[in-house]
Amino acid sequence: MSSSLEHVRHSLSHLLAAAVLEMYPGAKNTIGPAIENGFYYDFELSKQIGDKDLKQIEQKMRAILKTWKGFESKEVSGVEAKQVFADNPYKLELIDELIMKKEKITLYTSGTFTDLCRGGHAEIADIVPDAFKLERVAGAYWRGDEKKQMLTRIYGLAFGSKAELEAYEKRIEEAKKRDHKKLGPELDLFTFSDLVGTGLPLWTPRGTIVRHLLDEFVWSLRSMRGYEKVEIPHITKKELYITSGHWDKYQNDLFKIKTREGHEFAMKPMNCPHHTQIFARKMWSYRDMPQRYANTTTCYRDEQSGELSGLSRTRAFAQDDAHVFCRMVQVKDEVLKVWDIIHDFYPVFGFELNVRLSTHDPKAPEKYLGDKKLWDVAENMLREIVVEKKVEARDGVGEAAFYGPKIDFLAHDSIGREWQVATIQLDMNMPERFDLTCVNEKGEKERVVMIHAAIMGSLERFLSIIIEHYAGAFPLWLSPVQVKVVPVRETNNQRATEVGALLTDAGLRVDIDTSDNGFGKKVREAKDFKIPYTVIIGDKDIEKGVVTLESRDKGKIGEMKIEDVAALLAKESEERK
Amino acid sequence: MSSSLEHVRHSLSHLLAAAVLEMYPGAKNTIGPAIENGFYYDFELSKQIGDKDLKQIEQKMRAILKTWKGFESKEVSGVEAKQVFADNPYKLELIDELIMKKEKITLYTSGTFTDLCRGGHAEIADIVPDAFKLERVAGAYWRGDEKKQMLTRIYGLAFGSKAELEAYEKRIEEAKKRDHKKLGPELDLFTFSDLVGTGLPLWTPRGTIVRHLLDEFVWSLRSMRGYEKVEIPHITKKELYITSGHWDKYQNDLFKIKTREGHEFAMKPMNCPHHTQIFARKMWSYRDMPQRYANTTTCYRDEQSGELSGLSRTRAFAQDDAHVFCRMVQVKDEVLKVWDIIHDFYPVFGFELNVRLSTHDPKAPEKYLGDKKLWDVAENMLREIVVEKKVEARDGVGEAAFYGPKIDFLAHDSIGREWQVATIQLDMNMPERFDLTCVNEKGEKERVVMIHAAIMGSLERFLSIIIEHYAGAFPLWLSPVQVKVVPVRETNNQRATEVGALLTDAGLRVDIDTSDNGFGKKVREAKDFKIPYTVIIGDKDIEKGVVTLESRDKGKIGEMKIEDVAALLAKESEERK
Repeated sequence: MSSSLEHVRHSLSHLLAAAVLEMYPGAKNTIGPAIENGFYYDFELSKQIGDKDLKQIEQKMRAILKTWKGFESKEVSGVEAKQVFADNPYKLELIDELIMKKEKITLYTSGTFTDLCRGGHAEIADIVPDAFKLERVAGAYWRGDEKKQMLTRIYGLAFGSKAELEAYEKRIEEAKKRDHKKLGPELDLFTFSDLVGTGLPLWTPRGTIVRHLLDEFVWSLRSMRGYEKVEIPHITKKELYITSGHWDKYQNDLFKIKTREGHEFAMKPMNCPHHTQIFARKMWSYRDMPQRYANTTTCYRDEQSGELSGLSRTRAFAQDDAHVFCRMVQVKDEVLKVWDIIHDFYPVFGFELNVRLSTHDPKAPEKYLGDKKLWDVAENMLREIVVEKKVEARDGVGEAAFYGPKIDFLAHDSIGREWQVATIQLDMNMPERFDLTCVNEKGEKERVVMIHAAIMGSLERFLSIIIEHYAGAFPLWLSPVQVKVVPVRETNNQRATEVGALLTDAGLRVDIDTSDNGFGKKVREAKDFKIPYTVIIGDKDIEKGVVTLESRDKGKIGEMKIEDVAALLAKESEERK
Repeated sequence: MSSSLEHVRHSLSHLLAAAVLEMYPGAKNTIGPAIENGFYYDFELSKQIGDKDLKQIEQKMRAILKTWKGFESKEVSGVEAKQVFADNPYKLELIDELIMKKEKITLYTSGTFTDLCRGGHAEIADIVPDAFKLERVAGAYWRGDEKKQMLTRIYGLAFGSKAELEAYEKRIEEAKKRDHKKLGPELDLFTFSDLVGTGLPLWTPRGTIVRHLLDEFVWSLRSMRGYEKVEIPHITKKELYITSGHWDKYQNDLFKIKTREGHEFAMKPMNCPHHTQIFARKMWSYRDMPQRYANTTTCYRDEQSGELSGLSRTRAFAQDDAHVFCRMVQVKDEVLKVWDIIHDFYPVFGFELNVRLSTHDPKAPEKYLGDKKLWDVAENMLREIVVEKKVEARDGVGEAAFYGPKIDFLAHDSIGREWQVATIQLDMNMPERFDLTCVNEKGEKERVVMIHAAIMGSLERFLSIIIEHYAGAFPLWLSPVQVKVVPVRETNNQRATEVGALLTDAGLRVDIDTSDNGFGKKVREAKDFKIPYTVIIGDKDIEKGVVTLESRDKGKIGEMKIEDVAALLAKESEERK
């Protein structure tokens, strides 16, 4: 195909408008761009339409498409344009703006349909009739302004081929089934309460186990690299954030508190400023450097209700945060250590990682703290490390944190979606603002550098990703319950209890189901909770001195001695499989 | 001695006033009661006095004491009393109040000194001249009202004998040396930052280790009794506390937040309301009961600056909290389980426990939530358990929580001070307010009961107690660094590193000091940090294939094979000695 997909999608929005204007007399078309995976167009309609009407509009689009030869452009004056759209107040508003800005006004015509447009269309031959589809109808305010007219938006999907469209739809279907907002409560991992509030998840025993396992895994990787745990309060006087610069750059996102004595406090949206105050408790010798502080702790941000979504966007989220305070000459070693942790951690989940070097936006210097020279030093240092690591890093201009550049890691999940996960941030600004130093070999105060290094980032967000990645079927090591022991009949209960104790002693998390539920229900519950293994104990098993092992993923494994089951599963769990 | 110590102390306040009036012409005496460990008296003085003047006043007191025979009482009319105290506006104010309330007015005279007084004095013979002492001078407002006259308060200590006075002074002296506010930073356990604020401790790596060890110990005791961990956010919508009753009873102590969208949130001052919302996530069968939720999490209270003190009173404190949701018939079993945990935990620290049954104050019903009948049931249930446990429980009338009665445990530390530590609270009110139920054998909804069961209570406060209890010299299992390996000379560094690795492999927390500091300084640092063991490695040790072990508490232990040292210390640590 010679036309770009974006041009095809844009052309389809014209086609959509042509179809709607023919089908709904009096309809006024407004704006219709290409978007990710497709396109949309907003209309003022005199009758309400719904998803049920889309098939018919689609057919009309395909019919009109056959009559189109191409897009003919024509530059016109403001007066001419206004004549063409005399009965469409939306287009008139747009034309007035173009006149004000003294911009060129162009009309594009295909078949009998003419639109006000900047251009960028496909060859008609490149628009594949069965590679697009209308998706859904939604409401949208004119120009996104809730004080203005409510319009009808029709979304469409469009790809280069029918196969690609189907693959996309299948992925969406799969993603819906895996939605963590649905799976989380079904697997009893977390819950929300109307009394506590949206965006504030409550963690059940099962979910808490998963959180601890993840956090312990990260800690084991850090601990062997000389990190130490610290602990901080979730609030602070405003003064900390005035010094750090958060108050200035970040004020609207803070939960603010006025104490009974009138002091101004805030809840922490990140942990770096607090950690500087632990570092600053004493004068350090160069011999004591680096200091590496790890701390899994909850951060709070005053997100707007409309932006909250399950665990993906919350008002409370735990960060597995760490800050390394080091000398400039130690930066490379310390960044590489974090890089190693990230590369020990993510592949365990089957995530492949891409790297992005996120630097400041030279066009928006007001978004960042500190001196441009410091930024150049820091960005070059990270660039060198990326080069040395021999990875292909994407350019992330404008993606830096406000205090420094970052190396970001992006993971691809089991259904092909990309997520930004870990990040290594180099910060020469906080140490400047908090006057953090060590005494060097010459007895002089030397400015230190800070490396921000969360591995999962937000535990909530990471959990939302892996719940969907695994479709809730966690691998053995990460499953809240690893083995369910199911006696077939009540008379097998005693043996089930013994077997359960043996598996527990092997370090496994075991659920022994000696309830008075029937055998079928017990097994079904194991499936519902996606428990990796079920150990079944019937009369014959007891006679033979074995148990029957079933795997969630591999089906029936068969009769085994319980000691062998314990050893097998303990090994699999320890290897994080 | 026939007089009570309180009467002695009260009599001494008269004696103090008599001495001051003689020594400082124009002085006006106001009020002077007996207090714990002694007495005080407040005066209006025309000249400022300080601690340096106390010796002289004390001598005068002893001189006057010799002239006193006893306390003669005389009931007088308001008019007569006003004549006696005509030039003392403070006494006149008190007399007016007595007249208003129509109370009896009595004067007590000993020697030439007469005071307005309700009585309660000792026999003169029971006032031992060398068993009292003036302690210090302080400022105090008349009637404790900061808008009124500032007076001079003189504090005195008084006991039954000189030996008792000296024992008390020694204890105070010892307590000062052990002050956790001094030891904490010296041992680098925690720090405070002016930017973060008072009452908000920051935990260093060493302090964080101690916190985790304590928390893990409690968790190990809970985990074997069927508790499960949960996790909650530190904030909530106001609605949760309106339902729980905290908003009504507790509002002034809450940190309150108004979000950018205008919602009212609060930081949690306790965890019970949040935990009810985890329990309430689904319908429970009686088969699923009890549900036992454990959660170490930070609580926040808007304390006044003047009341903050080190770790004893903070604005942020972590609770090792747990709540058991159970059926009424399960209460006894569950309370006994908590009792067992408490009795497994505290003796490890050498604490002896006393028990107090804390019930509601029948004179102040407005302080408590809910129906008196529920209170009677709950209090009787706890009383039965105490009786069954065959312990002598003190009566703690008025010491209940606002939602239910408690069994409180009081510990005595190594210098004889008493601290309220663990608590078991029986709560029938929260389940009522949150409508918490399970479905019983008959298929009916049955109201559940909640047991609140923190073991340490506040980790901060518990740490303040044990830092002082141990005078900073933690037992092996609780020491942030358990062994310091000290090479005598630089050439011994390699062996020191090997030895350190071996001890680390044995699960010990090791500090290998291969710095270029001198041997003396290295050993001194081990002492300063109160590290339980030091392993010294010199040329001779290496020749003989041994190390030299020194104990902080037992002195030099001598030459040992490093494998034996590792085994010895690992065992001692595991046994929590």
